[in-house]
Amino acid sequence: MTPFRITLSYDGAGFVGWQRQASGVSIQGLIEDVLQVLDGRPVTVIGAGRTDAGVHALAQVAAFALAREIDPATLVRALNAHLPPAVRVLEAAIVPASFHPQFNAHAKAYRYRMFNADALDPFERGRAWHLPGRLDVDAMRAAAPLLEGRHDFAAFQAVGSAVETTERHIFSSRIAECGSLTGSPSAILCYEVVGNGFLRHMVRIIVGSLVEIGRGRRPAEWLGRVLMSRDRTAAGPTAPSEGLFLVRVEYPTALAAGS
Amino acid sequence: MTPFRITLSYDGAGFVGWQRQASGVSIQGLIEDVLQVLDGRPVTVIGAGRTDAGVHALAQVAAFALAREIDPATLVRALNAHLPPAVRVLEAAIVPASFHPQFNAHAKAYRYRMFNADALDPFERGRAWHLPGRLDVDAMRAAAPLLEGRHDFAAFQAVGSAVETTERHIFSSRIAECGSLTGSPSAILCYEVVGNGFLRHMVRIIVGSLVEIGRGRRPAEWLGRVLMSRDRTAAGPTAPSEGLFLVRVEYPTALAAGS
Repeated sequence: MTPFRITLSYDGAGFVGWQRQASGVSIQGLIEDVLQVLDGRPVTVIGAGRTDAGVHALAQVAAFALAREIDPATLVRALNAHLPPAVRVLEAAIVPASFHPQFNAHAKAYRYRMFNADALDPFERGRAWHLPGRLDVDAMRAAAPLLEGRHDFAAFQAVGSAVETTERHIFSSRIAECGSLTGSPSAILCYEVVGNGFLRHMVRIIVGSLVEIGRGRRPAEWLGRVLMSRDRTAAGPTAPSEGLFLVRVEYPTALAAGS
Repeated sequence: MTPFRITLSYDGAGFVGWQRQASGVSIQGLIEDVLQVLDGRPVTVIGAGRTDAGVHALAQVAAFALAREIDPATLVRALNAHLPPAVRVLEAAIVPASFHPQFNAHAKAYRYRMFNADALDPFERGRAWHLPGRLDVDAMRAAAPLLEGRHDFAAFQAVGSAVETTERHIFSSRIAECGSLTGSPSAILCYEVVGNGFLRHMVRIIVGSLVEIGRGRRPAEWLGRVLMSRDRTAAGPTAPSEGLFLVRVEYPTALAAGS
């Protein structure tokens, strides 16, 4: 058995998310189905992060083991030949058998894209949260870093989640410049966050809260009070999935290299 | 009758192009249909450029006259409320009755987006020409400016076109940096061209020829020889429509201002 790591990008629109579900098309399911044909046996694919329905990935990481001998470049071509164009494998590497894409990750980076103008750019459909009306970007910019550090993020977790601990370490939480296809980024606003792990809907609840601040309904300092409350009902609404991108997953250098 | 100018953006996928056709959905037809309801009478809309099927626009310009009194901001909202999200009106202004979006334009700018990597980024589907394999970008960069100046561009015109003159003035013809949604523009390549007018398929035939050079099938200087030949069969193939964007239309300052 050869253990592989793949890096993949997908447009989350129309999928039920990363994880295989009772019904609907999942990214994990698509890849497992192609690998089953390729390897002549069922293959289990483990992802670094379970992106929700509609959430995009620029570089999701996944792992699986194959019985068949295949070089990484051929594996990339075989997967892309059978996956829909909305899902592309960018890279494959042979990794140590102990590699686990979720447990070995020491950081994940997410980007949330917002479009702040009356009319939504047609090329931003499904790729940004459309926010017409004035946004106080300076207030959002001031609030975002209040979440940096090791904290209990219970206030920013979807109701009904069951995890061992709601403590996470956020290395960076910023409103940043971001790219657009049109090259006129004036209306585009990005929230960029890097952390050692994220609770369910955490980035989307943070963004929903930042937008409350941007709309002038709450002052920037309010975000710190929400954090301290550990109470989901204190935070803003959950931002829609279409603006969220899993940007990258970071591993210790030895594992990141592959072969 | 009040003469209006509108600026609009559209994702050309799925449309038969700007111009109303016997069958299929055109941008012109969509706008005329909304205006007919709004104005209670048939309204003719004239565009600055007849983008072909599948070609996109970041800032197409169009003009029409309305019997009904309506302020420009309300007109923008009314149009966007009834147009599909793939077509967005960005701006409207009242202009002199003599304003003609095509004849008054003194320059148009087009961008052609190419994606040079084995796997096409899912977010570039329908928005770039996918070109796997090595491209000699330096050779393309050297060739592009050979078309600058006032020339007979007959070699870069679709067969069967009937125009009075095939002479055009190209102010700028360059391979340039360009934006991407993912912010990792390494695989994205843009051809940017500004001229006083363009023949049918001209930008796409230029790009098809530049890609011949990029693939090493022709040297950079060949592009100049194609230009001098005035022979369509001497040029490269027509690049696909999905990579082409009408970026802007320029008018004399007095007309550009509107009111």
